Amino acid sequence: MHVHVNAATSVDGKLSSRRREQIKISGDDDFARVDEIRATTDAVLVGVGTVLADDPHLTLDDDELVSAREARGEPPHPARVVADSRARTPTDARILDDEATTYVLVSAAAPADRRADLEASGAVIVEAGEERVSFPEACDALEARGVERLMVEGGGEVIFSLFSDGLVDELSLYVGSMVIGGRDAPTLADGDGFVADFPSLSLRAVERVDDGVLLTYDC
Amino acid sequence: MHVHVNAATSVDGKLSSRRREQIKISGDDDFARVDEIRATTDAVLVGVGTVLADDPHLTLDDDELVSAREARGEPPHPARVVADSRARTPTDARILDDEATTYVLVSAAAPADRRADLEASGAVIVEAGEERVSFPEACDALEARGVERLMVEGGGEVIFSLFSDGLVDELSLYVGSMVIGGRDAPTLADGDGFVADFPSLSLRAVERVDDGVLLTYDC
Ligand SMILES: NC(=O)c1ccc[n+]([C@@H]2O[C@H](COP(=O)([O-])OP(=O)(O)OC[C@H]3O[C@@H](n4cnc5c(N)ncnc54)[C@H](OP(=O)(O)O)[C@@H]3O)[C@@H](O)[C@H]2O)c1
Ligand SMILES: NC(=O)c1ccc[n+]([C@@H]2O[C@H](COP(=O)([O-])OP(=O)(O)OC[C@H]3O[C@@H](n4cnc5c(N)ncnc54)[C@H](OP(=O)(O)O)[C@@H]3O)[C@@H](O)[C@H]2O)c1
Repeated sequence: MHVHVNAATSVDGKLSSRRREQIKISGDDDFARVDEIRATTDAVLVGVGTVLADDPHLTLDDDELVSAREARGEPPHPARVVADSRARTPTDARILDDEATTYVLVSAAAPADRRADLEASGAVIVEAGEERVSFPEACDALEARGVERLMVEGGGEVIFSLFSDGLVDELSLYVGSMVIGGRDAPTLADGDGFVADFPSLSLRAVERVDDGVLLTYDC
Repeated sequence: MHVHVNAATSVDGKLSSRRREQIKISGDDDFARVDEIRATTDAVLVGVGTVLADDPHLTLDDDELVSAREARGEPPHPARVVADSRARTPTDARILDDEATTYVLVSAAAPADRRADLEASGAVIVEAGEERVSFPEACDALEARGVERLMVEGGGEVIFSLFSDGLVDELSLYVGSMVIGGRDAPTLADGDGFVADFPSLSLRAVERVDDGVLLTYDC
């Protein structure tokens, strides 16, 4: 499976402010670029932290991209995937509407009633891991369901785990020209953090986009 | 006064790991560039957090840069400045040696005995602010002592305050191609963080340096 992480940060590496509200970091050109990556992927993953904070839809905005997918015999939108160990995704989350398949990755610790509620709301439950979602197992399970290309749209906890598990193949990082600050604001890679053997990426491309810069790395 | 912030972060905006140990983020070309900025500045500022974590020297490495300063009638090295509200800088800190003038910015709350110890170790004490160092007052006091160009080399607490006070004129950010991660690792701008009216910078230049990229902003 090919895993492509895409995110936008401030110059100081923040995904959002300490209030964890969605902040417009990039502009129209970057949004169009993100939509194009989405259009060529089989599924888009976020953590439940992002679902609770932003309630994202994760479908394609551009109708032409939808038509092109359909013309290729693909579903109109990529599937959506939530990493949600305890099945906390709200049943009225936008990600659960019927515009695309939605996988909720849970751990063995997810309560049966929450799983049932999510299934009744249209989610496909995929169990991977004991206490917390295990991404290596989850990727295998998604691959078995036909997900060959996985795009990851955050947040920082999930992205750290994916780097930690050595699963990331590609990183597209838009660095916007604003300062967010905050020792408690979410960053591109949170989690416990590395203290040695830092993953070393290879900077493939540097391009000015909107008021900021798009950095593309092979991982 | 012209305030120029210079720092190196990982792709995820970290200055260091959660252990707050110094990490080699950039390479020789970036070190040479930093030395050149230092050579043209009147003083280099860090926070006491950086002094306690890294014990930096902050003098010039390159003898030619030293000679050029002396030929211009300047002191061999720029002055060093520590933002240290309670005068916690250790008396054996490398920053206090006699290679350059060292100003320790303290607040009115700094104990008299600590001030005396630092003065006995060669520091020039500058009081600015009641409980915490006030950077607007400190900049005025430094300017009165001839500091027209101030370079800031971190860390994230001090840099956030300088942005918050609207004092930063220029930011040079080297983004290294490594992931550090960690929700508790220091970032380029920590502090309480902004929740609205985010400072908006203007991206002046983008240049590949070593394995990463140097981003230069007007602030
Ligand atoms: N600027 C951008 O590009 C962008 C993109 C996305 C999000 N954001 C922002 O990022 C913030 C949310 O980020 P976040 O880091 O708090 O949340 P997140 O990464 O979206 O979700 C974190 C949650 O995922 C669950 N999870 C399940 N398995 C995991 C695993 N193996 N490793 C890590 N997490 C796992 C955990 O909850 P359980 O233990 O309950 O499963 C964890 O708390 C919001 O402020 C949002 O606005 C910004
Ligand atoms: N990669 C790089 O370029 C780079 C550069 C520098 C440092 N670093 C790393 O950064 C870390 C240290 O950063 P840090 O953020 O912990 O420390 P810091 O910013 O160097 O120092 C913070 C301290 O400065 C003092 N201070 C005084 N007045 C202040 C004010 N108005 N606003 C904010 N702080 C004020 C405060 O202590 P008092 O209240 O006691 O005064 C505060 O705790 C270390 O891990 C170091 O290795 C990396």
